[in-house]
Amino acid sequence: MSSASDLRPFFEPRSIAVIGARRNPGFGFGIPLFLERHGFGDKLFLVTPTPGNLHGRPVYSRASELPEPVELGIVIVPASATPEVLEDCAKKGPRHLILENAGFSETGPEGAALEARCRKLAKDLGLRVIGPNCVGVVNTQNRFTSTEVMEECLIPGHLGIIAQSGVFGNILLDWLPEEHLRISKAITIGNRLDVNECDLLDYLAADPATRVIVIYLEGAQDGPRLLATLRRVTARKPVLVLKSGRTPAGQAATVSHTGSLSGEDAVYEAVFRQGGAIRARGVHELFDLAKALSTQPPMRGNRVAIVTSSGSLGALVIDACLDLGLVAAALAEETVAKVRRQAPSWMNVKNPLDVGPSGQFRVALEAVLSDPGVDGVIAIPVVPFSVVRAMEPIGFTAGLWMGEIAKLWQASGKRKPLVVGLVGNSAWVDRIRKLCGDEVPVMDLPEHAALALRALSLGNHTHSEE
Amino acid sequence: MSSASDLRPFFEPRSIAVIGARRNPGFGFGIPLFLERHGFGDKLFLVTPTPGNLHGRPVYSRASELPEPVELGIVIVPASATPEVLEDCAKKGPRHLILENAGFSETGPEGAALEARCRKLAKDLGLRVIGPNCVGVVNTQNRFTSTEVMEECLIPGHLGIIAQSGVFGNILLDWLPEEHLRISKAITIGNRLDVNECDLLDYLAADPATRVIVIYLEGAQDGPRLLATLRRVTARKPVLVLKSGRTPAGQAATVSHTGSLSGEDAVYEAVFRQGGAIRARGVHELFDLAKALSTQPPMRGNRVAIVTSSGSLGALVIDACLDLGLVAAALAEETVAKVRRQAPSWMNVKNPLDVGPSGQFRVALEAVLSDPGVDGVIAIPVVPFSVVRAMEPIGFTAGLWMGEIAKLWQASGKRKPLVVGLVGNSAWVDRIRKLCGDEVPVMDLPEHAALALRALSLGNHTHSEE
Repeated sequence: MSSASDLRPFFEPRSIAVIGARRNPGFGFGIPLFLERHGFGDKLFLVTPTPGNLHGRPVYSRASELPEPVELGIVIVPASATPEVLEDCAKKGPRHLILENAGFSETGPEGAALEARCRKLAKDLGLRVIGPNCVGVVNTQNRFTSTEVMEECLIPGHLGIIAQSGVFGNILLDWLPEEHLRISKAITIGNRLDVNECDLLDYLAADPATRVIVIYLEGAQDGPRLLATLRRVTARKPVLVLKSGRTPAGQAATVSHTGSLSGEDAVYEAVFRQGGAIRARGVHELFDLAKALSTQPPMRGNRVAIVTSSGSLGALVIDACLDLGLVAAALAEETVAKVRRQAPSWMNVKNPLDVGPSGQFRVALEAVLSDPGVDGVIAIPVVPFSVVRAMEPIGFTAGLWMGEIAKLWQASGKRKPLVVGLVGNSAWVDRIRKLCGDEVPVMDLPEHAALALRALSLGNHTHSEE
Repeated sequence: MSSASDLRPFFEPRSIAVIGARRNPGFGFGIPLFLERHGFGDKLFLVTPTPGNLHGRPVYSRASELPEPVELGIVIVPASATPEVLEDCAKKGPRHLILENAGFSETGPEGAALEARCRKLAKDLGLRVIGPNCVGVVNTQNRFTSTEVMEECLIPGHLGIIAQSGVFGNILLDWLPEEHLRISKAITIGNRLDVNECDLLDYLAADPATRVIVIYLEGAQDGPRLLATLRRVTARKPVLVLKSGRTPAGQAATVSHTGSLSGEDAVYEAVFRQGGAIRARGVHELFDLAKALSTQPPMRGNRVAIVTSSGSLGALVIDACLDLGLVAAALAEETVAKVRRQAPSWMNVKNPLDVGPSGQFRVALEAVLSDPGVDGVIAIPVVPFSVVRAMEPIGFTAGLWMGEIAKLWQASGKRKPLVVGLVGNSAWVDRIRKLCGDEVPVMDLPEHAALALRALSLGNHTHSEE
C-alpha cells in the first residue's frame, strides 16, 4: 500500500522529464510549453529519440541519459515502447511515472498482455506509476499539471477529484470553474497499472487543501480494500462517488474503456454505504453535492426552511426535501413577527416562505438564518426576467431584490447550511451566482438543493479547515 | 364543459379592454403598451376610474361604458373590486375575462369567501373566466399575450404549456428560448374560478399548432374528469405532467399558493398512468422530455445505440438506458465495417461506440442512424475545451469535429429519434446547440437523453403535423 509520502513526487515534482516530447502538435509538443508557462521550465527535461533542440532546449535520447536525477517522468511514447521506457527509467531516471499513452487492456487481449508485462516490470523495478490511458495530475497549490488545462481550473479550492478516465476528467475540469467549483487536486487514474483509487483516497484524506473528495469509478481493483479505505477516509472527509457499469451494457462499456471489471452493482452499493460514501446518480448531482459539501457546514438536524419568490418552486422543493427524510421547520414566533412587520397582507408567513413580489426576500432570508428551529435553509430567488429588464435601467439590482446573499450568510455566522436553487433565464442565474460568490452554492436544478441538505445532514464527516 | 370555440376569445381576441389600466408602473401600465407593440393597438380600450388620457388614449370609467362590444377583458383591479367588475361586464362589456389580480383563496378564509362569491357570479352571469392569481395567456401564432413576456418567447413552436402559477409560468417562458424550446400557446390558470386544466387540455388537443402538451399542476379540480380528459387527449398528443404537493408540506404550500388541495399523491400517480400522461420528476426533466417529444419521431422499438467521444459518459448513459427498460442495440455488420474502415486500431467498434479522439464521430453517427437494428440514437459529442481552444484558431470547428448534427439527422430521413446529451464548458455546449438547431434536442444532463428515448418509445401518441 502507498503512503502519502510515496506519492509526493506526482504532485510536487522537483524536476520533470517529458518522455516522448515531439516537434509536431500533440501532447508531446504542448505539455512542455504548458509546464514552462507555469514555472516548471528550470527543472524540465525533454526526452525524444531525434537529436536537435526542441522549444529551444537540448533533448536527450533516453531517460537514462538525463544529465541529473529527475523525480517525475511524463510518458507519451507509443504503447509498445513502454516496457523499454520503464527499464530505462529504472536504470537511471525518474522513479515516478505518469503514463499518458493508450493502447493497453482497453483495446483487447494483446493490449492486456502488454499491460500485464508493464505491471510486472514496474513492480519488479520498484517504480511508481499512474496510468496508462489517463492524463495524470492537477495540483492547484503549485500549479503543477501533467496535462494542458484551462487557466481557470487552477484557482485553488477544496475539492479533490479522482476520475478513472482522462477525457472525462478533462471535461470536468473545463466545466467546474463556471460552476464556481475550485479544486485542490485532480487525478485521472486510467488503467491503474500501479497507483489506484485507494492510494489516492488516502493521499487526499491526508492533504490539508482537500476538504471533499469526489470519485468517478468504473470498477474497483480490490473491493475489500476499497471498503476499508472508504471507512478510514470518510471518518475524516466526505467522499462522493459516481459509479458507471451498473448494468450489463454499462459493464461491457467500461471493459473496453479503461479495462475495468465493474462487477455487480449491489456489491458496490453495499461497499459505498458501509464505507460511508455518498453515491450520486449523475454528473450534475455529483458536483452539486460537491459544491455544498465543500462550502457549507454540516446540518445539525433535519429541519429545513425554504425562502422563495415562487410558490410553485417552493412546493416542488419542499416535496423533494420530505422525500429525502428532511422535515419542514416550524418557524419561531419571532421569525414570523420579523417577516410580518413589513409584509403585505396577502403574504402567508409560513414554511415554505413564499414572499412573492413583496420585496421581502432579504428580510425573510435573514430571519430564517437566525431562527434556532431551522437547521438548514434553501433560498429560491427567482423573478420573471422581463421584469428584471424593466427594472434594472432604473437602478434595481439583483442584490436589492434578493439581498446580498453571500454577505447575509457571512453575517449570519455561517452556522447552518444555505443552498440556493433556481431555474430560469441564464442572465438571471448569472446574477444570482455573482451574489452568491464561491461560498454559497447555486444549483440550477432546484431539486438538487434538497439533495445537498440531505448530504450535509448525514453527519458522517467533520470539516477539515485549512 | 367548455368547447374549444368557447375559449377562442382568450387566445384570439378581436378586441381587448384592460380593466384597471394605470398611470404608474405595474401590470396596468405595461400591458397596454405591450399589446400596442404587438399589433393590438387598434382594438384596445383602457378602463380606469380617473378621467383623462392614458398612453395617448381616452379612458372609460367602467367596462359597461365602452363605446363598442369588446371580446376580452384583462382585469387588474384590487381583489375586492372584482365582483363589481364582473357585474358590470355582464351588463355590457367583455364576456371573457382574464383575472390577473391576487388576494383570493390563496390568502386565507376571507379571500376564499370572495373567490366563492366571484365564482357564483361568473356562473350566474354566464361569463368565462381565467384566473384569478395568474398572468393569463400567450399565443405565439398571433403574438397575443395578456402579460409582458420576452420577445424571444414569441417565436412560434409546437409546445403547449398549462401552468398553475403565474410567476412560475413567466419564469419558464424566460428560460425556454435558451433551451431551443418554442411554444404554441401557454396559459397560467391560477385559482381556476372557471376555466381549468381539463378545459385547456381539450383546447390544446384541438389546436393544430400544438404537438406536445406540458402541464404543471398543484392539484386537480376534478380527478375523474382529469382522468377522462387525459385519456382522450393522450390518444392524440403526448402530455407531460409535473405535479407538486406530493408530500404533506408540499400540500400545505400549494394551498397557500393557488388555493389547491393537492391530495394523495398515489391517486394522482394512478390518474396520470391510467390517463397515459408521462410524469416528470423535476423542471429540467419536464422540459428535456418536452424538447424530445416536440421534435423527434416515436421510437419504434427499444434498441438504443450510443455514439460518444467519452467512454465514461457512454457507460453512464447506457446504464441509464438499461435502468429504464431500453436495450443496447447489436450493431449490424455493415455498420461495424463502415466505422472500422477509417478507425484507428485502438478503437473498439461496439455499442456504446466510443470514438475517443479518432475524429470518427460523424462517420459513426451516420452509420448508426442508418442501421436497421437501431431504434433510437444518443450522441455524446464532448471534447476537452482546452483542445477546442487550441484547434479553433487553425480552422477546426465543432462541425468538422462532430459532424453537422442537424444536417446528418435530416439526411438520415428523420426516421428514428436522435437525442444529444453532454456535459462540459458552456462555450462548447453552445457550439453543439448551434450544430443541433431547433430540430435535434440537446440535454445538458446526459442521463436525460435516456429518459427522452424512453418517453419516445412509449408509443401512446402520434405526431400531429401542422
